[in-house]
Amino acid sequence: MSAQPDSTNITGADALIATLLHNDVDTCFTNPGTSEMHFVAALDREPQMRCVLGLFEGGVTGAADGYARMAGKPACTLLHLGPGLANGLANLHNARRAHSPMVNVVGEHATYHRRLDAPLTADIEGFARPVSGWIRTCSSAEHLASDGAAAVAAARQGAGQISTLILPADLAWSERSAQAPESAPAHQLRPHRADLTAIAGALSSGEPVALLVNGRAVIGEGLELLGRLAQATGATAIGDTFISRVERGAGRPAIRRLPYFAEQAIETLSAYRHLVLIDTQAPVSFFAYPGVPSELTPAGCTVHRLTEPGDDTPAALRELLAVLGVPEVGDRGAISAHRPDLVRGPLNPAAIAAAVGHYLPEHAIVVNEAATGGFGMPGATIASPPHDWLDLTGGAIGMGIPAATGAAIACPDRRVINLQADGSAMYTLQALWTQAREQLDVTTIIFANRAYAILQVEFARVGAHNPGRRAMDMMSLDRPELDFVALATGMGVAAERVTTAEDMNAALARCLETPGPNLIEAII
Amino acid sequence: MSAQPDSTNITGADALIATLLHNDVDTCFTNPGTSEMHFVAALDREPQMRCVLGLFEGGVTGAADGYARMAGKPACTLLHLGPGLANGLANLHNARRAHSPMVNVVGEHATYHRRLDAPLTADIEGFARPVSGWIRTCSSAEHLASDGAAAVAAARQGAGQISTLILPADLAWSERSAQAPESAPAHQLRPHRADLTAIAGALSSGEPVALLVNGRAVIGEGLELLGRLAQATGATAIGDTFISRVERGAGRPAIRRLPYFAEQAIETLSAYRHLVLIDTQAPVSFFAYPGVPSELTPAGCTVHRLTEPGDDTPAALRELLAVLGVPEVGDRGAISAHRPDLVRGPLNPAAIAAAVGHYLPEHAIVVNEAATGGFGMPGATIASPPHDWLDLTGGAIGMGIPAATGAAIACPDRRVINLQADGSAMYTLQALWTQAREQLDVTTIIFANRAYAILQVEFARVGAHNPGRRAMDMMSLDRPELDFVALATGMGVAAERVTTAEDMNAALARCLETPGPNLIEAII
Repeated sequence: MSAQPDSTNITGADALIATLLHNDVDTCFTNPGTSEMHFVAALDREPQMRCVLGLFEGGVTGAADGYARMAGKPACTLLHLGPGLANGLANLHNARRAHSPMVNVVGEHATYHRRLDAPLTADIEGFARPVSGWIRTCSSAEHLASDGAAAVAAARQGAGQISTLILPADLAWSERSAQAPESAPAHQLRPHRADLTAIAGALSSGEPVALLVNGRAVIGEGLELLGRLAQATGATAIGDTFISRVERGAGRPAIRRLPYFAEQAIETLSAYRHLVLIDTQAPVSFFAYPGVPSELTPAGCTVHRLTEPGDDTPAALRELLAVLGVPEVGDRGAISAHRPDLVRGPLNPAAIAAAVGHYLPEHAIVVNEAATGGFGMPGATIASPPHDWLDLTGGAIGMGIPAATGAAIACPDRRVINLQADGSAMYTLQALWTQAREQLDVTTIIFANRAYAILQVEFARVGAHNPGRRAMDMMSLDRPELDFVALATGMGVAAERVTTAEDMNAALARCLETPGPNLIEAII
Repeated sequence: MSAQPDSTNITGADALIATLLHNDVDTCFTNPGTSEMHFVAALDREPQMRCVLGLFEGGVTGAADGYARMAGKPACTLLHLGPGLANGLANLHNARRAHSPMVNVVGEHATYHRRLDAPLTADIEGFARPVSGWIRTCSSAEHLASDGAAAVAAARQGAGQISTLILPADLAWSERSAQAPESAPAHQLRPHRADLTAIAGALSSGEPVALLVNGRAVIGEGLELLGRLAQATGATAIGDTFISRVERGAGRPAIRRLPYFAEQAIETLSAYRHLVLIDTQAPVSFFAYPGVPSELTPAGCTVHRLTEPGDDTPAALRELLAVLGVPEVGDRGAISAHRPDLVRGPLNPAAIAAAVGHYLPEHAIVVNEAATGGFGMPGATIASPPHDWLDLTGGAIGMGIPAATGAAIACPDRRVINLQADGSAMYTLQALWTQAREQLDVTTIIFANRAYAILQVEFARVGAHNPGRRAMDMMSLDRPELDFVALATGMGVAAERVTTAEDMNAALARCLETPGPNLIEAII
């Protein structure tokens, strides 16, 4: 007597979710609509997949980005047709720049409904193309498992990228007999293609060398090897201005950062005769400015490439150390622990930075979208206990609150501190509600200068006239003033306002010890 | 002695703004960034152009949509690179479906900077394509005036569409001698191509005829002629489910509306043997449902087309009346004035509808994104004083608060009432701040059922199982509950919460008499 395989019917959505889970995609950030109801019904039947609701898709995709950076694997998103995807595009742009792996599942009208051009019909592939490394519109219910496996495989490709899988509603609701989930092939980083002898020659030349680093050179094994390389050769490790994820703090190798403003970046790099690119590209300025070069590599500086994103940077660093005859184990230039003293008196960005550096919990995750308010923060925290630091990689503001949300979902045992500019906070404030619903341990510090202060700086830098009242109005948030305490409590997040350094210090100490989300509006 | 023309240098941005103003584009909704600073500097020099700051681009484009519907002409938007445009896409989708004319000016990196792939670099044309009827990336500072004129001309084309003009920063900041602004050619509606004899035959056949209407058939002269046609022939005028702008209320011809749910729409249309399409397309269901037809025209019903969007509908209606021998002046089936009585007791959507119908100010503008909470609203207001009514045309939620903002900018002497579902409100809540800054006379009524209630209905309708806890969590906003009073006051808008019909009535009467924006959170 032989048992028959279970032949209970499943829907296409069930098959897709089973394959996602089979490939270790076990978290779904979503804001669904009618065309996704069968996917939601399938989620209802599959408790292995954690579902997290966002009240706006910018929060959904930004959370998936923060999750991917910390979990090192993709989450899936579930988005409602073209407009749902469109609302998530800015944070998908940031995720693309962060090389975050992600699987977007975007609902589409039923295959036979699409040609009727109903009101919500849009060119979903068109919206997806600028941010996606891989796009597929499902064409058959039978292939949903293989479509899902292909989407996961694509998300893991290279240094990590965005897959967008478009799922027509009738394929999601179609029923068929159960089938086995499909496996995505394991991902391999590319071997490096560097001329190690030339790079070793530069490092041994006695001429000043900068190692411009990002990606796998600033976390885990890569960071350890990088520290060893810098310490042994006297080269300076300089991180890109904006990094997806960097491990830093006491006990870790020191990495300087390339300044944001082009003139300062040029000044920083002018000291070097060799630039070694490790898991990054040659440096360029963030914006163009009249009369300022956009390419930041100094004249007469030789550029070498060890690796680019998607390459096996740790292996390349190991090989380079071997060529140099440097043992892998040894002094890595680890930073000695030191917490800055608290500041008293008026509240300003320096006082906030001191408070964060002073109280930063061990293994905290810092999500930095503080803009001008955060310029002093890296220095104040560099010798604080070891922590992870996530930047705004793509310049599309509104990443901070969502990314903090996703990072907290990925790392439930770690405190997340979100350094958040006020203007940027208003882009995706809705993600605070998700923090409240999921009771995430996130402390948000709003740098409330009530302006797009960076624009007030940039207005002069691009060579525009002194701004008049009308121009200033386009860069100011002070009429009326935003009340972030009201905004946060309106979404279920405990909040308080501080106006002195003493109050800031006390509030931060309290918030970091309080479970669940909270917010400090720091008036600066 | 002859005077020389003024040869003061101007920037490319000045030239573009001068041409926009010359073509009656005098309002700019914006959230600018560094690459737009020279455009902002030029706005500073040009007080004729009204600038309105939004704290998120969904609010910017949605305001430009509401403005265009009421002003009958395009505003321009000023958006920051690809991500700024991306944030505005969902409301551009709605604007596209509303046939709203609009000129987007999207900043781009300097021409020489673009190839460097700096962090904010993105495929702007790619983002723009799904929503734009016309796209151009400016390639020469000399052509900015003609580019601007072409963008305005394109926005006015057909029934109205979206132009996207992409402006590299170095063209905006380049200086040249002043030049005359360029004129966009005047727009002409297309002549109809209908077989008037056949349509007149159907209308005279004695068989039941429905006139399915939208666009220029539901405002102004078209509406008057439509009323005359229906009244003289006994045909029933039925508006599309979602209409960009309809003039309604006491003294205006009655127009039924096609129900949202496919089964009800099919039932409504089943009574007719002829369907005459006037400034619209054949009816299709909003979503596909298993086992329900997506095309709503009944079997055996003959479809006639009088006009489609972009045609000269008033002229076609006049000609049709002439063929029928019906005088243009005469009974239009005007609705007699009647305000519903106020309701007492528990607060529910019917009580809110009664309050709105009872208090609706003459010439109010109603922006309807109430979703399930608003189903009773059309009936309760149909005989209230004459007003305009704007719907969510594209199904991309988050249109209401921004469109109300733009409508109030277009019509400063009229009260705007925004019927707003809570879930949808959270998409673009930031536009409340713009209402506060501009002190707009907008009253927002939040239908706070603390759910995506439409999804709870649709979940069953698509044939999914009864939702379990996990599925319900994806459709509920009740954990934690949103506090819209806190959210609104946090952005400078006065707000109150009501839980009984009596309180609702009193609050609405008070709000409608109070200048500036206010908000009522109606717990239902």
